Amino acid sequence: MYRIRPAQFFTLLAIIGPTALSAQTSNSMPDQVLDTGFIFTTFMFLVSGMLVFWMAAGFAMLEAGLVRSKNVTMQLTKNISLFSIAAIAYYLVGYGVMYPGDGWLIDSVLGGFKPAVLEPVGLEGVTPDLGYASVGSDFFFQLMFCATTASIVSGAMAERVKLWPFLGFVVVLVALIYPIEASWKWGGGFLEGWGFQDFAGSTLVHSAGGWAALTGVIILGPRIGKYKAGRVNPMPGSALALAALGTFILWMGWFGFNGGSQLAMDTAANVSDIGRIFANTNAAAAGGAVAVLLLTQLMYKKPDLTMILNGALAGLVSITAEPLMPGLGQATLIGAVGGVIVVFTVPLLDRMQIDDVVGAVPVHLFAGIWGTLAVVFTNPGATLVAQLTGIIVIGLFVTVTSTGLWFLLKATVGLRVDEEAEINGLDISELGMESWPEFAKG
Amino acid sequence: MYRIRPAQFFTLLAIIGPTALSAQTSNSMPDQVLDTGFIFTTFMFLVSGMLVFWMAAGFAMLEAGLVRSKNVTMQLTKNISLFSIAAIAYYLVGYGVMYPGDGWLIDSVLGGFKPAVLEPVGLEGVTPDLGYASVGSDFFFQLMFCATTASIVSGAMAERVKLWPFLGFVVVLVALIYPIEASWKWGGGFLEGWGFQDFAGSTLVHSAGGWAALTGVIILGPRIGKYKAGRVNPMPGSALALAALGTFILWMGWFGFNGGSQLAMDTAANVSDIGRIFANTNAAAAGGAVAVLLLTQLMYKKPDLTMILNGALAGLVSITAEPLMPGLGQATLIGAVGGVIVVFTVPLLDRMQIDDVVGAVPVHLFAGIWGTLAVVFTNPGATLVAQLTGIIVIGLFVTVTSTGLWFLLKATVGLRVDEEAEINGLDISELGMESWPEFAKG
Amino acid sequence: MYRIRPAQFFTLLAIIGPTALSAQTSNSMPDQVLDTGFIFTTFMFLVSGMLVFWMAAGFAMLEAGLVRSKNVTMQLTKNISLFSIAAIAYYLVGYGVMYPGDGWLIDSVLGGFKPAVLEPVGLEGVTPDLGYASVGSDFFFQLMFCATTASIVSGAMAERVKLWPFLGFVVVLVALIYPIEASWKWGGGFLEGWGFQDFAGSTLVHSAGGWAALTGVIILGPRIGKYKAGRVNPMPGSALALAALGTFILWMGWFGFNGGSQLAMDTAANVSDIGRIFANTNAAAAGGAVAVLLLTQLMYKKPDLTMILNGALAGLVSITAEPLMPGLGQATLIGAVGGVIVVFTVPLLDRMQIDDVVGAVPVHLFAGIWGTLAVVFTNPGATLVAQLTGIIVIGLFVTVTSTGLWFLLKATVGLRVDEEAEINGLDISELGMESWPEFAKG
Repeated sequence: MYRIRPAQFFTLLAIIGPTALSAQTSNSMPDQVLDTGFIFTTFMFLVSGMLVFWMAAGFAMLEAGLVRSKNVTMQLTKNISLFSIAAIAYYLVGYGVMYPGDGWLIDSVLGGFKPAVLEPVGLEGVTPDLGYASVGSDFFFQLMFCATTASIVSGAMAERVKLWPFLGFVVVLVALIYPIEASWKWGGGFLEGWGFQDFAGSTLVHSAGGWAALTGVIILGPRIGKYKAGRVNPMPGSALALAALGTFILWMGWFGFNGGSQLAMDTAANVSDIGRIFANTNAAAAGGAVAVLLLTQLMYKKPDLTMILNGALAGLVSITAEPLMPGLGQATLIGAVGGVIVVFTVPLLDRMQIDDVVGAVPVHLFAGIWGTLAVVFTNPGATLVAQLTGIIVIGLFVTVTSTGLWFLLKATVGLRVDEEAEINGLDISELGMESWPEFAKG
Repeated sequence: MYRIRPAQFFTLLAIIGPTALSAQTSNSMPDQVLDTGFIFTTFMFLVSGMLVFWMAAGFAMLEAGLVRSKNVTMQLTKNISLFSIAAIAYYLVGYGVMYPGDGWLIDSVLGGFKPAVLEPVGLEGVTPDLGYASVGSDFFFQLMFCATTASIVSGAMAERVKLWPFLGFVVVLVALIYPIEASWKWGGGFLEGWGFQDFAGSTLVHSAGGWAALTGVIILGPRIGKYKAGRVNPMPGSALALAALGTFILWMGWFGFNGGSQLAMDTAANVSDIGRIFANTNAAAAGGAVAVLLLTQLMYKKPDLTMILNGALAGLVSITAEPLMPGLGQATLIGAVGGVIVVFTVPLLDRMQIDDVVGAVPVHLFAGIWGTLAVVFTNPGATLVAQLTGIIVIGLFVTVTSTGLWFLLKATVGLRVDEEAEINGLDISELGMESWPEFAKG
Repeated sequence: MYRIRPAQFFTLLAIIGPTALSAQTSNSMPDQVLDTGFIFTTFMFLVSGMLVFWMAAGFAMLEAGLVRSKNVTMQLTKNISLFSIAAIAYYLVGYGVMYPGDGWLIDSVLGGFKPAVLEPVGLEGVTPDLGYASVGSDFFFQLMFCATTASIVSGAMAERVKLWPFLGFVVVLVALIYPIEASWKWGGGFLEGWGFQDFAGSTLVHSAGGWAALTGVIILGPRIGKYKAGRVNPMPGSALALAALGTFILWMGWFGFNGGSQLAMDTAANVSDIGRIFANTNAAAAGGAVAVLLLTQLMYKKPDLTMILNGALAGLVSITAEPLMPGLGQATLIGAVGGVIVVFTVPLLDRMQIDDVVGAVPVHLFAGIWGTLAVVFTNPGATLVAQLTGIIVIGLFVTVTSTGLWFLLKATVGLRVDEEAEINGLDISELGMESWPEFAKG
C-alpha cells in the first residue's frame, strides 16, 4: 500500500534484516528501538499529509482572491466541497484502486472496489510493516494528493461552471481517473516498470489535474465578455492579498508534498534527503518568482503580482518531478524555467481564447510537463523516452476520460450557468449568498 | 501532570521496565536510546500544541468573517486578548487546578493555587518521566485546550457584548471553570473513575465552551433587529473568504487537537493510532461538510456555505470524543450526523430567539453532545449511563457557574453596549478603529 | 556549518563518543540507533525552518493589512520578491559568508564567496556529522532567518519606497550585511568569543532588521501628509483582519524560530528545553499583548488593536534573545515590557516625524534591544558589558552599511516614487494593478 521506489526495499532490508533482528533478540533491546524507524516515517507522513491538506486552503484562498467578488462564495463552496468529496471517495474507492496489491489490473478494475481499511487500534493482532509506516498515515498522506488533483481543476473553470456538474466530475476524478493513472506508477503499474520517473507528481498529480482543467475549460468556453472583437478583456482578481496568502500556503504545503514523497525517514540518509528536498523545493519556488519578477519588468515595464505568484507555483510544480537529485542551483533554474513558461503561456492561452481564470493550466500542466522532462538532466537513470512516454500516456488517459465525462455532463445536466446568472455572479444567482455583502462595488 | 489514560501506564512499564533497563546498563547503550520515546512524545506534543494554538487564528478568522464589518476590529481584539489572557491565567492558576496531583480536591480548591513550574533547563538535577513527555510540552499542549474553550464563547456573543466584562468572564473560565471540570476526567477525578470517556474533549472542551456560550447568549439577548415581528432577519457575515479560511485553519489545527490527545508516540502502536486519529478526524470533517452540502441543497435548493463550514466544524467536534476507535466509514458517519445537527439546530435556535452569531452552540455544544454519545457505538467499554453522566455533570457545572458569573457581570459592570453603540458598531463606538476603513458600505 | 553553542560540542561527545561507538560495534546494533539523534535534530530543523518560512506569509499579511488599500499590491510584491531574492542570494553568497569555516575572515571576505553545497543524495560517500543534523536542513533553517531580517525592513518603508531600489538593498542585506554580522556570533566570530549572548536573534536578526529599517525610514522621509503643522495624521490600515492574521502567523512561526534555535533534539534534555522554549515564547507573546491591552485602555480609554498586535510581536522579539532560561513568569514579564515599549515608542517616533508605517522599529529594534539586555537578568553567565557590546557593534555595523547603501541608492536610482505616484498609490502608478479593484473607496 505504498508508492514503490526501488531504494525503499533495500532500506527495509538494511533495517530489519537478519543481523539487526538477531542483535535485538540477543540483547533484549527495548521494543521501541526496532520501532524507531516506523515511528519516524509514520510521523513524517502525518506532518507531511497535514501540510498537503493545508494546500486545500491555499487553493481556496488563491482562487477566492483571483475571481471577481461576485463569484467568491461559489469558489469557496467548490473548494471545501471538492476536498470533502475527495476524502470520502478516495476512502470508498480510490485508495483501493490505486494500491490494488499484486493483481492490480484485474483486482482493481474488475473486482477490487473496496474501501480503505486501516490497521487495528494499537496494532492489535497484526504485524505492521516496520520498514515502512502505518497504513493510517499512508492513507492520510495519499488522500491529500488525490484531493490536490481535484483542487487544480476548480480554479481554471471558475465563474461559469455549475456547482453540481463540477462536483460530479470531481467524484469520478478522485475515485477513478486519478487513482487509475497514479497506480500505473505509484501502485507498481507498467509506467513504474518502463522507467518513468515522477518523484512527487509533476505528471501524476499536477499535469493530470491540468489536463482535466484544460479539457473542461475548452468544453465550457470562455466567460462572457472575456474575449471581444479579438481583444482580451482583463478581469482582475478581487482580493490580491488573499491570492498572495494562498500562494504562501501552497508554498508551505509543498514542503510536505515533496518532502513526504521521500516515503521514509528511518535513516540518516533518508532524513538528509528530505532536507535536500525541502531546500530544493524552496529554491525552485524562489527561482520561479524571481524569474517572473524580472521578466515581467523587462517585457511590460511593470512587475505583475499575479504572474509572480503563479511563477512561484510553477517553480514548485517544476521541481516536483525530482526534488531530490538537483543541486540548489539546478533547482533554482528548474523553477525559473517554470516561471518563464507561465509568462509566455498565459497570454498564449488567451490568444487561443482558452479562458483559464487562475492560470492553472500554465502552472500545473505546462510547468508539470517541463518538470517531468527536466528529470532527464538531473537523474542518470532517466531517459527522455520514458519521461515522454509517461507524460503522453497519462495525458492521453486523463484527456480522453475527462473529455468524455465533461461532454456527458454537458449533454445531460449541463455544465454552464445561464447567461443572466453568469453576469449577476454565481454567488447571488446560484447560492443566494454574497461573499463581501457590505462593500459597495466601485 | 498529564491526562490519565489506562493504556499509558502499561506503555511506560513496557518501555522502561526492568528488563529493558538492565539491558541498557550491561550493553552501554547510548543514552539517547532510552530517551527516544520521551523525545518522540515530547516533540509530538509540541507540534500538536502548535497546531492547537493555530486554532486561535482559526476562530479569529471565522468570527471576523461571520460578523458584520462594523464589529470586526472588536472581534479580533477579543480573540487575541482572550488567548493571551488564557495563556497567563492557565499558567498562574489553571494548570495547577487541573492537575493537582494526589489530593486533588483539597490541594487545588483549598490550597493549591500554584503557578505551573517547568522542568529545569537541561533537565539538570531531575529525573524526567521517560515514559511520558517533558512538563514544558505537556503544559504547552494543555494550555491550548484551555484557550480553545474560551475561543468558543467569543463568536456566539459577538456584536453586542462589552469587551471588558467578556474578558472578565474569560479569566474565570480559563482559570477555574475549565480546569475544574476538566480535572474531573483528565486530572484523574471522579468522572475518570466512573468510566466517562472523552478522548480529546467533545464534552470537556467543546460542550463546556458551548454551555458557557449558550448561557451568555441567552442572558445577553439577541442583537437589535435580529428578530422582528416573529421573523428572523438575516445578518450575513462580512467576509466569507475569511470565514472559510478560519474553517480550514481549525480543520488543520484539529489534527493536533485529536492526534496529540493520544498522549504518546513512543511505540509503533501509538504512532499507528495517531495515524488512525488523523485519518478519522479528516473523515469526520469531510462527512460533516458533505452532509450539509447535500442537505441544504435538498432543503433549500441552494447549498449554504456558512452552514457547510459549520458542518465541517461540527464533524470535527463530533469525532473529538473518540477519534481513535471508529473505522473510516464510522468516522465519516459520525461527522455527517454532526453536520445534520447543525442544519436543524441553527434555525431552531433562531426560532427560540437565541442569537448565536456564528453558530457556536450547534457546532460545539450540540455536536459535542452527539459525539460524546456516539462513543457508545464505537467503544466496547463505554456505557450510555457513563456518557450521559459526564455530559450532564459537566453541563450542569458549566451552566450554573457561567450563569452566575454572567449575571454577576450584568448586575455590576453591565454586559451589553448601549443601543447607539451597537447600531453604530462596536469598532467605532468602543474602539474607535474601523476594520475596513476605506471601503464604502453598500 | 552551524551556530556554535558551547553545550553542543559536549552533547556531540556524549552521543558518538568512544564508549557509545564501541558498544554499537560490539552489539551489532541497527544503524538507525546511532542515527536517531541525527534524524531527530534534522527533522526538527525542517519543521522549524518551515515555520520560519511561514513567517514570510505573516509579514506579508501584517503589512498588507496595515498599509492603505492603494499600496497593498506593492506591499505583497515586495514581500514575496524579497523572500525569493533572499533564498537565492543566501544560497549563492550568504551561507558561505556566514559559516566560513576556520579562517572565516579571510576565506569569506577575500576568497570565500562560494555557493552553499548540500550533502550528497543518500549521504553517498560522506560521513555526516551524526552529532548534529544534515547540511540541507541546516541551510534551510538558517536561510529563513536571513529572509526574516529582510522582511522587517519592508513594512517600515511602505507606501513610498520604489520597488527596485528596495530590492537592491535587500540583495546586499541578505548576501552580505546579515551574514557578516550574524557570523560574528553564530559563525563563531569575535562576539561569540566575547561572551555576547543572543539565543535566537533579538539582536542578530530583529535589531539588525530594525536598524536597516530605521535608517531607511529616516533617509526616505515620511509619507506625504503624515505630519502636518506638527500634528500626526493617522493613516489607518486597510484590513485589520489581515493584520491580525499576520500576527497569528508570526506568533506560530516563532515557535520554530526560537525552538529550532536550540539546534539539537537528540536527547531528553534537549527536547525538554525545546518544550520550555515553546512555552516561554508563547508566554512572552501573551504578556506583550495583555500589557498593551491594559495600557492602551488606561492611557487612551480604548484598547488599540494594532498596538495589541504589535505588543504580541514585541513580546516575541523580546524573548528571542533568551527563550530557554527564564521561567514562565519571567518570560511573561519580559514580553510585557516589550509591549510597554511599543506603546511608548510608537508615538515617540511620530513626534520625531520618523514614519514607520507598521511599527517595525519599535517592535524589532527597540524590543530587540530590550530582549538582549534582559538576558543579564536570566542568564548567570551574561554580562551587561557583553550584551551592550553586541548591541552596539551590530547596531553600528548595520547602521553604517545600511546608511551608506540607502544614500548610494538615493543618489543613483532614487529611493522614492514621485509625489503623484505616492498620492495615487503605488499599486496603480508603479504596478498598474489594484489590490481590491472592485470595492468603492469610502
